[in-house]
Amino acid sequence: MTDLRKTVERFWAAAEARDWDAFAGTLAEDVVYTLPQTREQISGRERYVQFNREYPGDWHLRVERIVAEPGQVVTWLHFTVGLEEMYGISFFTGTDTPSGTDTGTGRITSITDFWPEPYEPPAGRDHLTERY
Amino acid sequence: MTDLRKTVERFWAAAEARDWDAFAGTLAEDVVYTLPQTREQISGRERYVQFNREYPGDWHLRVERIVAEPGQVVTWLHFTVGLEEMYGISFFTGTDTPSGTDTGTGRITSITDFWPEPYEPPAGRDHLTERY
Repeated sequence: MTDLRKTVERFWAAAEARDWDAFAGTLAEDVVYTLPQTREQISGRERYVQFNREYPGDWHLRVERIVAEPGQVVTWLHFTVGLEEMYGISFFTGTDTPSGTDTGTGRITSITDFWPEPYEPPAGRDHLTERY
Repeated sequence: MTDLRKTVERFWAAAEARDWDAFAGTLAEDVVYTLPQTREQISGRERYVQFNREYPGDWHLRVERIVAEPGQVVTWLHFTVGLEEMYGISFFTGTDTPSGTDTGTGRITSITDFWPEPYEPPAGRDHLTERY
């Protein structure tokens, strides 16, 4: 297990708990958040915490899958806002705790989020696919 | 580096090269392909290779980022079809080559794809974000 994986697990647990001090504690001060679908970017811990704190709706999240290697983590979230269900996919980069030191000092330096929406299957492939 | 990472790198290189024998060689016979956005699923290597072989358009791909741990890999693709540009995110599970044996025997057992589309940013957050 990489330390950055643990940092990312704390990041999502703190978001779900609205514990914004713990949330901020997982982030590097110069963290950069990027949303390629809208071409939006947020720079710096303070703004990024505010963005999450102000995010509207009674949202809840559950981590479906997490894949980690040193310095990089990806999560796949199941995200709900009221009755609406979404997937969220987040690519994290950051620092792992150097070996031989206390764990828990890894920090997230970048987050890139994707929010894929449902769509209708294109025609001409139902001889190969099943719907679920 | 995990062996499954190498298998996934071969998988995408073979797709881009339309080398369907090499592509099939990265897959377990009972591979399952899932598209949560359309709720489509394809079961088995033969159908899944056919799905890719028949996929319309002059598509090309480039791997932007890859994150791997034993048994799990995620890729973030830059994908083009003519002038259209897309992101593709794929979660792979599979088998790594057992240590002490020849490499290259890892096989992909599941693939879950997400294809996020551009959208307009919601109102009320442009005090925190920049567009790029």
